[in-house]
Amino acid sequence: MSGTTATGAQPGWLAEVRFDEHGLVPAIAQDATTGRVLMLAWMSAESLVRTLDTGEATYYSRSRRRLWRKGEQSGHVQQVEDVRLDCDGDAVLLTVRQLGGIACHTGRERCFFRALREGRWQDVEPVLESPEAIYAGKRAGGPSE
Amino acid sequence: MSGTTATGAQPGWLAEVRFDEHGLVPAIAQDATTGRVLMLAWMSAESLVRTLDTGEATYYSRSRRRLWRKGEQSGHVQQVEDVRLDCDGDAVLLTVRQLGGIACHTGRERCFFRALREGRWQDVEPVLESPEAIYAGKRAGGPSE
Repeated sequence: MSGTTATGAQPGWLAEVRFDEHGLVPAIAQDATTGRVLMLAWMSAESLVRTLDTGEATYYSRSRRRLWRKGEQSGHVQQVEDVRLDCDGDAVLLTVRQLGGIACHTGRERCFFRALREGRWQDVEPVLESPEAIYAGKRAGGPSE
Repeated sequence: MSGTTATGAQPGWLAEVRFDEHGLVPAIAQDATTGRVLMLAWMSAESLVRTLDTGEATYYSRSRRRLWRKGEQSGHVQQVEDVRLDCDGDAVLLTVRQLGGIACHTGRERCFFRALREGRWQDVEPVLESPEAIYAGKRAGGPSE
């Protein structure tokens, strides 16, 4: 996969992605091994190009307003195996190898661990590693990825 | 699953869903049988409550600006088996049984059929039934679901 052309011009495929009024598109990360949906995050054009160029999922953090290479603090990098665009071009699906087996900043395998049971959202998936352990000794900035 | 209380008041669990500035949240539909990610659509509070009350995926169509019961024209209803909310409450994951085996209005199994190959998006999944056949004789309004 290659995100940019040899001349550095914007690649033609990028024009078919319909970014929203904030310049973002939702991106789903699905685990290549288990098929489980790990998370939904957002991508700018730059983050999508970088994802394709590097083969590592790079999102745009809306809270921090900057590019966010998944795993940059936690080490839980996502190696991208496939990128799909949906029929109307406004959603992206990544197939990823999730290093460390943990996608969520809470230390769970994935972010979709809250199920509606008996009228309330209940945490139904285990914490595999505490956020403190995940982020201990790593670059400052908090476990907000 | 039940979306509303006996008194019809807004259910407490709804307050934990972080809808965006348009009152919407992205919802991913994943096939319960195959594990494949079928589509991403949007839900308003009303569509989410209705989904839970009826057990059938009901989205909010941004183009038509109204609730959209998936399959209302095509018959390709999604029976919802599970609903998940992500860690920060701003994305929903549905596990669904896709009636007819077709989620996309193009007649494909799913909307994520465009893969980036050799620098362009290429259709890599087959049309299982033509849109004309899917929508023939069904209620007018076009195949825009």
